[in-house]
Amino acid sequence: VSSTDVAIAWQGTGAPAKIARLSRGVPRFYLFIGSTRTSTIPGISIAGPSPEATLLTPGLDSEYLITGRVISFDVIPMTPDGIPTPAVVSRAVIRAASIPALVIDAGSYLSPKVPHAVLPSKEMGGRVDECAGLSEGAARRLFAEAEELGKSSASPNDTVVVGESIPGGTTTALGILAGLGYRAWGRVSSAGPENPHRLKESVVKSGLRRCGCGGLWEVISCVGDPVHVSIAGFVRGAAEAGAPIVLAGGTQMVAVLAILSAAGAPLNDIVIGTTRWLVEDPSSDIVALVREVAPEVPILYYSYDFGGFPYEGLRKYEEGYVKEGVGLGGLAVVAHLIKGLGKDAVHTAVLREYEGLLGRGG
Amino acid sequence: VSSTDVAIAWQGTGAPAKIARLSRGVPRFYLFIGSTRTSTIPGISIAGPSPEATLLTPGLDSEYLITGRVISFDVIPMTPDGIPTPAVVSRAVIRAASIPALVIDAGSYLSPKVPHAVLPSKEMGGRVDECAGLSEGAARRLFAEAEELGKSSASPNDTVVVGESIPGGTTTALGILAGLGYRAWGRVSSAGPENPHRLKESVVKSGLRRCGCGGLWEVISCVGDPVHVSIAGFVRGAAEAGAPIVLAGGTQMVAVLAILSAAGAPLNDIVIGTTRWLVEDPSSDIVALVREVAPEVPILYYSYDFGGFPYEGLRKYEEGYVKEGVGLGGLAVVAHLIKGLGKDAVHTAVLREYEGLLGRGG
Repeated sequence: VSSTDVAIAWQGTGAPAKIARLSRGVPRFYLFIGSTRTSTIPGISIAGPSPEATLLTPGLDSEYLITGRVISFDVIPMTPDGIPTPAVVSRAVIRAASIPALVIDAGSYLSPKVPHAVLPSKEMGGRVDECAGLSEGAARRLFAEAEELGKSSASPNDTVVVGESIPGGTTTALGILAGLGYRAWGRVSSAGPENPHRLKESVVKSGLRRCGCGGLWEVISCVGDPVHVSIAGFVRGAAEAGAPIVLAGGTQMVAVLAILSAAGAPLNDIVIGTTRWLVEDPSSDIVALVREVAPEVPILYYSYDFGGFPYEGLRKYEEGYVKEGVGLGGLAVVAHLIKGLGKDAVHTAVLREYEGLLGRGG
Repeated sequence: VSSTDVAIAWQGTGAPAKIARLSRGVPRFYLFIGSTRTSTIPGISIAGPSPEATLLTPGLDSEYLITGRVISFDVIPMTPDGIPTPAVVSRAVIRAASIPALVIDAGSYLSPKVPHAVLPSKEMGGRVDECAGLSEGAARRLFAEAEELGKSSASPNDTVVVGESIPGGTTTALGILAGLGYRAWGRVSSAGPENPHRLKESVVKSGLRRCGCGGLWEVISCVGDPVHVSIAGFVRGAAEAGAPIVLAGGTQMVAVLAILSAAGAPLNDIVIGTTRWLVEDPSSDIVALVREVAPEVPILYYSYDFGGFPYEGLRKYEEGYVKEGVGLGGLAVVAHLIKGLGKDAVHTAVLREYEGLLGRGG
């Protein structure tokens, strides 16, 4: 990869061969959505106008991603400051690069009013500080069902790109990583410029204290959520079906790698695809996490640059807002590597998509 | 196509180019499921152990297709005589040819306990003799939602194969065709050797009489069902996304063509893929229907031959039982054209799959 569009933050092992392989596939995007009441703890998540409203975000993100509008409520998917949800950027990229997309509900509070797949055992997650991340039965079933879906829906000709939308997800990712024994404190990302590390740590620690977590499934049930375990199952199934995989996300995807590793799944043919914002984030450290959890996995990132946009809401992405979500980084990585989409085309698509929102009264 | 495996029943227009194009794509199978209470009219459907039980068949077919077993009930998916559901054959083919599959629920009585996609407006169909095929609003919404799904999930690199599971579906197909003014009486197929044409005609006619149907949406609402309209929407969306399409089914797929035609959708890049059993069925006439409804659409068929199998249940397929369903014909067509799967390999896979069932006490 010798371009200013896509760069490597961590080589892992065999990066050139892995990049060559995923560049030959036809990209398909799978967005896993779910809610955890952890996001309603004040201060944990800014992915919604209020802590309670963060429960709606995954469903609304899905509606926007697929149709270009929010259907369940009459709202514009941006903050009062005009910062758009990452679904706006992701939609711009999948449209510009003609990337097929499917939403998979693992436990969303709001069922999106667009066609989407469901895991039969879908279950919303609980507040992990109160030790009800997910029932252990649900954790096992979601993994198995998602694995089945991955196995039955992927092929060696695909490049499977997997994204997430789960407010509070970096906190449950921290829980999974810490619960499995990794040094993750202070290293997970957040969707705002102020990363509430101390709050996340105290939430996770009270979860771990109350539950006395042991093995993989107990950890997920104790401090996890429905999305990370489902993505891990799906990735294992898609890998069995022979597809190379791009985990399109930030530090949450390291929790997915930790689950896969604990489940004994091979990590070949997996790369992380994220954003420059995430890689350069001074308040988190995805490279350190990957080195510790799964050093063989390369990290690629897309060098979005929203600094030149004429809209404050988009420029906020340069100030540490959002950084990741709805697969926006990994999608741009594959749009570049597979479809040859240039940065100008990506930025123009984002601008058009955002201006479409403004036109609707944002 | 110069082989004994796949043959052409109707040339349509530009068949060689259409076959060449679909042979270059990567096949993906989409199974649309739904129920209509029309199947509970005694004598209409044999796709279940009793008229009421036919409502369960689409959900159970889906479970079997994806996992190789029925999950919701402790049953073996075959008749007391040992005739297996077509899902058994379809699963054998998708496994032998590594074809990715996704189930889409348009209105199934039973929600399958495997990961699957749902159309948000999914709605079970009513008894069309009592004039409650589907609400007109649901018909329009299902078409639009399925179109969205087709548009967002297909790509020009795919070959989209679409199958159905809806007991009573040939009766609602007859309703749609007759309601739209085509000469369909006595021409649709059935899942048994005795085709109850007179009963189907009387059911459809009492539906049409009670409703005074006019345009497309009124016809579907009057004598249609959730599946055919959803497949039509999906096909239109997938075609917009640039994918060639194989309608994997029998005379029901002509009803899909009739809906597409009435909706003004182009029919280029669509072929029907079915079975020898269906094409040679003396009690129905798919070629005559296609000539009348959409003469440009070629009909390809797979020459399954179950006559040499050592099991009565499988040999029954040669006596007019089943013939079509769960996409078994079109799947074998693409497995041959795209994956080069030979007839021996197909038949061996079917035999293994069936023997797996017997081993479980069938």
